[in-house]
Amino acid sequence: MLHGVAIMHMLRSLPQEHQSLTSLCEEVHGCRAKIRCGNGAIRPMIVPVLFRVSTPFKRCFVPVNLSVPEVSDLLAVAGVRIAVAEAGIRKAHRKDLTLFVLDDGAAVAGVFTQNRYCAAPVQVSREHLAQAAEVTGQGIRAFIINTGNANAGTGEAGLRHAHQTAAAVATQLGLEPVQVLPFSTGVIMEPLPVDRIEAALPALAQQAQDGEAGSAARWLQAAQGIMTTDTVPKAASASATIEGKAVHVSGISKGAGMIRPNMATMLGFVATDAVVAPELLPQLVRQLADESFNRVTIDGDTSTNDSFVLVATHQAGNAPITSLESSEGRALYAALRAVAQQLAHAIVRDGEGATKFITIRITGAKTSAEAAQVAYSIAHSPLVKTAFFASDPNLGRILAAVGYAGIADLDQHRIALYLDDVHVVQDGGRRAEYREEDGQRVMAQAEITIRVDLGRGDAEDTVWTCDLSHDYVSINADYRS
Amino acid sequence: MLHGVAIMHMLRSLPQEHQSLTSLCEEVHGCRAKIRCGNGAIRPMIVPVLFRVSTPFKRCFVPVNLSVPEVSDLLAVAGVRIAVAEAGIRKAHRKDLTLFVLDDGAAVAGVFTQNRYCAAPVQVSREHLAQAAEVTGQGIRAFIINTGNANAGTGEAGLRHAHQTAAAVATQLGLEPVQVLPFSTGVIMEPLPVDRIEAALPALAQQAQDGEAGSAARWLQAAQGIMTTDTVPKAASASATIEGKAVHVSGISKGAGMIRPNMATMLGFVATDAVVAPELLPQLVRQLADESFNRVTIDGDTSTNDSFVLVATHQAGNAPITSLESSEGRALYAALRAVAQQLAHAIVRDGEGATKFITIRITGAKTSAEAAQVAYSIAHSPLVKTAFFASDPNLGRILAAVGYAGIADLDQHRIALYLDDVHVVQDGGRRAEYREEDGQRVMAQAEITIRVDLGRGDAEDTVWTCDLSHDYVSINADYRS
Repeated sequence: MLHGVAIMHMLRSLPQEHQSLTSLCEEVHGCRAKIRCGNGAIRPMIVPVLFRVSTPFKRCFVPVNLSVPEVSDLLAVAGVRIAVAEAGIRKAHRKDLTLFVLDDGAAVAGVFTQNRYCAAPVQVSREHLAQAAEVTGQGIRAFIINTGNANAGTGEAGLRHAHQTAAAVATQLGLEPVQVLPFSTGVIMEPLPVDRIEAALPALAQQAQDGEAGSAARWLQAAQGIMTTDTVPKAASASATIEGKAVHVSGISKGAGMIRPNMATMLGFVATDAVVAPELLPQLVRQLADESFNRVTIDGDTSTNDSFVLVATHQAGNAPITSLESSEGRALYAALRAVAQQLAHAIVRDGEGATKFITIRITGAKTSAEAAQVAYSIAHSPLVKTAFFASDPNLGRILAAVGYAGIADLDQHRIALYLDDVHVVQDGGRRAEYREEDGQRVMAQAEITIRVDLGRGDAEDTVWTCDLSHDYVSINADYRS
Repeated sequence: MLHGVAIMHMLRSLPQEHQSLTSLCEEVHGCRAKIRCGNGAIRPMIVPVLFRVSTPFKRCFVPVNLSVPEVSDLLAVAGVRIAVAEAGIRKAHRKDLTLFVLDDGAAVAGVFTQNRYCAAPVQVSREHLAQAAEVTGQGIRAFIINTGNANAGTGEAGLRHAHQTAAAVATQLGLEPVQVLPFSTGVIMEPLPVDRIEAALPALAQQAQDGEAGSAARWLQAAQGIMTTDTVPKAASASATIEGKAVHVSGISKGAGMIRPNMATMLGFVATDAVVAPELLPQLVRQLADESFNRVTIDGDTSTNDSFVLVATHQAGNAPITSLESSEGRALYAALRAVAQQLAHAIVRDGEGATKFITIRITGAKTSAEAAQVAYSIAHSPLVKTAFFASDPNLGRILAAVGYAGIADLDQHRIALYLDDVHVVQDGGRRAEYREEDGQRVMAQAEITIRVDLGRGDAEDTVWTCDLSHDYVSINADYRS
């Protein structure tokens, strides 16, 4: 990665006719510079690929209003212990193996990718979740998560590797293999180096017993340990008051590309110490996913490895929550949703090449499913996404995406479109009062809400996405090399 | 637009540590340079955006194995006359208004976009096609095509403008308005400047009577007259021998972005002088579209203006063709399909930012619809498309796209994947015999065939697409400015 100073030097070395450019440069952070425009406005600029050709590619841009979580903002969750190690799975000297150990008595539920090419660990985790209680009389007690290798597209050998990983963890912790859920993320179609995982496990198991294993700091390390092309670790906490006691919720997630979760995100783990009736947990994880990870998209590519797991360690001492309609249920759900949405939004804010965080709200739909369908059609349109990257209110592209969303009986003459507070389209056509400069003002923001009213019902839904930039292409054209 | 020499000069002006780059530059065409790699191979390189910042953006790259058609390769079609003018619809000094006049007795059929936000001219053309014969006792006699403005997302005013355009053409040619089909392409959500079209019509109508109006050269001018972000005009001809006589087929098309035709392409016009039974024409245009324009995609954005129209002028003197199963029917269909596929492929070859022409063939499917669904899932994956841009055999991304294509009962353990002649995946996993350098060799080509066998039936289908490059983002981030 080139540093700002080197890039400024290169900009200054341009021939005379382009010297004006260098004087426009206000500041440079990594691959991103700020340029002073003719009208005095400061605009971001991506430093050209050429300047990076001779150096190893590295992501070096700034996510949208997202910074590294502070340990002081995170909460420990009683009954969850964490360990993180460098196993050298793909690259040396990076934390790439994370172990979660749950106290006996914890309940676990999960949702997984609907991709039919789902990874081996997804298949094994589904199996173990379904069988653990029956086989052992106990539940799930550990998660083992590696980054650097997705163990997807690996056929029967991949399944053997995932089982072997779970069995090795079980041996270290004195559990049955069926009590361990394996998770993998990284490059697809490469054999998983199980030997390196096995070699790292004894130290990892020991670390999970140390005095820091249950700390908030270890949650942050876990968030770092599961990153792939993420630039920022993603962790969040919230608390709720139940029966006068504080219960804790903490979670981590990862993902920046191949993101269009269809049941869950790349990887998301949320735990609470609250006592929750076991039969409520599967419903809870599904509803949470639908209001968070299942409503974000970066590039429409549903991953082979999406997994979202919810843990209730049952150590807070409250009476079991049996309904989300009770006041206790509502309080807990609000805390869980706050964490899950923050983690899901963090994935979009750190989306590969993202420069904008875009909320797409569809109202006036017949059903919320129909609203989501239209929202995703807009969110996946490369033309819409590049217009947002350019801060160009070329809003006809949004209308086209509404039109091809697959609502067969949609009446275009009832459509309204708003960009934040600017009313752009009424009765299907551009309003006479609409001024391009109003659209331009909103498009220049880093956070934008598109609202489309379909004029055919009362249902609505919201999806969050980001723009499509040069950096998305750079990152994904260079990721493996 | 910067010229090659200026760019070479800038490359040479880089500081010492990057001088090695300039010595690698073999040649520069517009924004595209060729670089000599370490292994001696010549690779294309996109000249960085920075070098274009201070100049008006203009597309300046090379399409994939596509050149401007030669007039000598095109055939006149008896009964079709053409005129092209500069009406100043969006920009001055460019041909942006094209008139087709058909002799009395011609038959016309068309297919149009399934986008529910279809443009006003699409709605009017559908109406006129359905009503012309009934209202006038004759058929469609003229097409009027403007570029620079799509007349889409324009509400009721847009419909009035499309009707007004057709009526003005009818007045000039002594026809009924219902005998004129209007077509528009360009920016969405801007009012159509009908006054400029009306002002240009008298000269246009006169030109359609001149001695060149029926010539092959005028077909090429029409191909130029309907371009938007296309870099190359798209025209093709073929002939068939029917009853010992040569019948002619000629066509033109346009489109480079917002391309995922769903019944037709952005704009495609094909005419033959063959005599075809009128009841066969609607079936013929649909089948042709399904084997050509309906099987290409650039960005998955189905346009508001897709229209594909087939004309039979009935002047070749053959006995009417009543079936595509007869030897005459087969001969004519082969010529029509050759032209339609060449025009559809030309759109992909000229796709915005395209550097690769990719054929995606899905075999072993239960139905051809299912095969097309998987092919489009691959063709629309930004991750697959950027890997092709990078010539990186990151083929797990193809497997992921197969997996999320929506085939609920797909068995990943039966999937095979081939890249041209290289067998990459067997039984769902990477073959032990597969070598990365074999994948690399194919990925370096400008034309590549992906074949995925689903292992669940005998049906197949093929879709053509291109890669996703930095230039796609540049073009669509800067298109309107």
